[in-house]
Amino acid sequence: MSAVPSLRHLLLLRPRLRFIALSTSSSPFLSYAPSHHFSPSSLRVLSSSSSPTLTQEEADEAVGKGSSLIDVNPPRGTRDFPPDDMRLRNWLFQNFREISRILSFEEVDFPVLESEALFIRKAGEEITQQLYNFEDKGGRRVVLRPEITPSLARLVIKQGKSVSLPLKWFTIGQCWRYERMTRGRRREHYQWNMDIFGVSKVRGEAELIQAIVLLFERLGINSSDVGIRVSSRKVLQAVLQMYAIPDNLFTQVCVIVDKLGKITREEIEKELLSLGVSIQAVNGIIEVLSLKSLSKLEEVLGSEEEAVSELKKLFSLAESYGYADWICFDASVVRGLAYYTGIVFEAFDREGKLRAICGGGRYDRLLSTFGSEDIPACGFGFGDAVIVELLKDKGLLPDLAHRVDDIVFPLDEVLDGTASRIASSLRKKGRSVDLVEDKRLKWVFKHAERIGASRLILVGNSEWERGAVRVKNLSTREEFEVKIDELV
Amino acid sequence: MSAVPSLRHLLLLRPRLRFIALSTSSSPFLSYAPSHHFSPSSLRVLSSSSSPTLTQEEADEAVGKGSSLIDVNPPRGTRDFPPDDMRLRNWLFQNFREISRILSFEEVDFPVLESEALFIRKAGEEITQQLYNFEDKGGRRVVLRPEITPSLARLVIKQGKSVSLPLKWFTIGQCWRYERMTRGRRREHYQWNMDIFGVSKVRGEAELIQAIVLLFERLGINSSDVGIRVSSRKVLQAVLQMYAIPDNLFTQVCVIVDKLGKITREEIEKELLSLGVSIQAVNGIIEVLSLKSLSKLEEVLGSEEEAVSELKKLFSLAESYGYADWICFDASVVRGLAYYTGIVFEAFDREGKLRAICGGGRYDRLLSTFGSEDIPACGFGFGDAVIVELLKDKGLLPDLAHRVDDIVFPLDEVLDGTASRIASSLRKKGRSVDLVEDKRLKWVFKHAERIGASRLILVGNSEWERGAVRVKNLSTREEFEVKIDELV
Repeated sequence: MSAVPSLRHLLLLRPRLRFIALSTSSSPFLSYAPSHHFSPSSLRVLSSSSSPTLTQEEADEAVGKGSSLIDVNPPRGTRDFPPDDMRLRNWLFQNFREISRILSFEEVDFPVLESEALFIRKAGEEITQQLYNFEDKGGRRVVLRPEITPSLARLVIKQGKSVSLPLKWFTIGQCWRYERMTRGRRREHYQWNMDIFGVSKVRGEAELIQAIVLLFERLGINSSDVGIRVSSRKVLQAVLQMYAIPDNLFTQVCVIVDKLGKITREEIEKELLSLGVSIQAVNGIIEVLSLKSLSKLEEVLGSEEEAVSELKKLFSLAESYGYADWICFDASVVRGLAYYTGIVFEAFDREGKLRAICGGGRYDRLLSTFGSEDIPACGFGFGDAVIVELLKDKGLLPDLAHRVDDIVFPLDEVLDGTASRIASSLRKKGRSVDLVEDKRLKWVFKHAERIGASRLILVGNSEWERGAVRVKNLSTREEFEVKIDELV
Repeated sequence: MSAVPSLRHLLLLRPRLRFIALSTSSSPFLSYAPSHHFSPSSLRVLSSSSSPTLTQEEADEAVGKGSSLIDVNPPRGTRDFPPDDMRLRNWLFQNFREISRILSFEEVDFPVLESEALFIRKAGEEITQQLYNFEDKGGRRVVLRPEITPSLARLVIKQGKSVSLPLKWFTIGQCWRYERMTRGRRREHYQWNMDIFGVSKVRGEAELIQAIVLLFERLGINSSDVGIRVSSRKVLQAVLQMYAIPDNLFTQVCVIVDKLGKITREEIEKELLSLGVSIQAVNGIIEVLSLKSLSKLEEVLGSEEEAVSELKKLFSLAESYGYADWICFDASVVRGLAYYTGIVFEAFDREGKLRAICGGGRYDRLLSTFGSEDIPACGFGFGDAVIVELLKDKGLLPDLAHRVDDIVFPLDEVLDGTASRIASSLRKKGRSVDLVEDKRLKWVFKHAERIGASRLILVGNSEWERGAVRVKNLSTREEFEVKIDELV
């Protein structure tokens, strides 16, 4: 028992903070084409802070002795959230939650890993071509969800009669897509979804758009910064009917024309022609999609047309809600997801620098594709990336520094029990307390600044003998001696 | 344009809420052996509510017409979170966050998908034998993380000099494990982790244990319900030295003896013997591990022994913090993770009905296994399942019903604009408002009860002509006519 073995030596090695060399190569500031309700958008990372990252070479060199450092980066196209980034994410999510509460939506969640079957659709959507899918050890096809709506629909079916319609649910979750990495694309993002099941009228869409507008207003964004383009897939449907194009091509046509502006008109034409759409119809479709005025649309389709009457109703409701200045009709909005059936919308920055901030629409026939009875539904997805880019551009990112109420610092090792007692007592009062030991006072002051501490509580021998501590108010620089029992 | 095509017919089909047959087979109330810092524990699902679930057969029958329903359940061993379950989860996480704030920890997060390399350890841990791992389309080995500590360590290395030590981080995230499904085991759970890097003294562990105790107290649990067993791996290390067992067997021995009480003593013996440990040493190890008193341990190992002095210091700090009645020495606590090096602890229910509630310890040598320089560190993982079981047993689950401030209900369709205006105005004041249309008043009252609404605002023609609405206080049943402009 008296022998000191080599293992003991190892344990006694208390390494100091002597760190490996760092490069300043920036963290992956990547854009990302988001998934649910999104047309491919260049979303950039949520955070503004870029952390210094080691290259493998530098790391190997720094560590030396041949032991090679693991890859310190998260998987390609994914993000870590160090404290600064996490505070920003929490702040954003808190705003999502608050708006959802105000609209009286209930929060739900689903596993990030889902059955692949839920996302198999054959309309040629980008989202289903970039599934982050696997076979698990049991031979099941599984997928890191690219969007949340199918899980929502699954749960609605599963809950069946136990839920009462209308049902208003929101969720905030991570979505994934696997794509060959071109420079600066991300493979995951977080998405806020609000969905309504059981409301067939455009009241559903009107409520969703109010939620989006209330969020923007809450974040300090106004209608001169951002607009919301609105159209309806029923516009396209009416045009297809004009040209006697079979109903079963509707979804594919939608997915193709959604690419207008992203690929050339010639490519769109080619894809539509190969589907069997006549060149006259192609021209007709593209012409109608260029309309930016509801009255013009009414001229073309007639006022009896459901697309027209629903859009008019939505714009009239927008007046009542008080957000008419945020929305505009734009027939070119189709959205890339296969399952939309009616009103579709997307928020955009008026400077035109960013891709869609969020997008959504009506999907009245999704449940039947899962073998269940349809329930009218609408919803939107709102990613965590473009909005942060916009807030950054507008100087609207909040100051979210770390804040701590008290630092308790014993000036002598023998006072560590007293320091524990004081920290414990303050914590039980709900104060956030950092207990610091084995540092110089100079370090403690620097640390206090770094963590935004309000007070420094110095536990020293002479004060302790009087049953007291020294309390320094770090904003006013005032210092008092306070009885331990009277500390609040 | 006047033709009404068949697709249009489809669109006009507004399905009513007529739902498929439901069974009452309960949702998967499963146990789960959690991962990070956990010895295998039977964690049950977070929520108490079991939702009715369709069997595939019933679903097929109900849907009829040969179109078969998708599997409405989430992947085997995973959970959906319908609103009730989500409220409970949010409430629990909110408590995790509040305690973390009080202890002045900062929140961080990591991708749920990590490189497999981060979790490859060869000590025979259960956790690394049940990796939910895949090969992605780029041929990379990836894994749904089974625990969070390795990601934390990776980020600490990556951040390098940009962080100042000590560093106190917490995170709440989902962890996964893939195991052949025996009845009632779950494949995912959420875990609260608190970790400290850069504190070599047992002050680190003392702080972590205070966090756990403060959480229990906040949840209404007291020290007669729950205790925290504490030991140190240095106890085992000292015993190995007594028997001159090579240092390189330390980790494997720890992982094996952690199974004491889970598998038979004979099996433990067999595993240790096959490692090359003598039968005398096996007996000595098992004898020491049965000690439940620190003074007894001191007799056996001597007071000079680091294991003893550190444990004594921890118990003395516990007195100062005021949580001594929560903790007890128990040499049998070893914990199942390979990387622990010093103090280890786990919380347990004193009735002995549940498995470990949380677990943690010191891991001073994890960073060097990743090729970096070591930093002393300690942390714990606290799952979302056993704690909920315990709260349920003790009747401590909170009432978390849905709450809404106002329901706005237009009694006539022509008043939907007015209703929008009123709802919008109340929402801008921060009130949560549910806007209901196309329902009978009787339904609205039932609905108000269901969602816990405080007020019902009836928008009727005669009041509207006077610029007013009828407001019904749903708790007092009082009714007033209120001018729209004066509504708050």
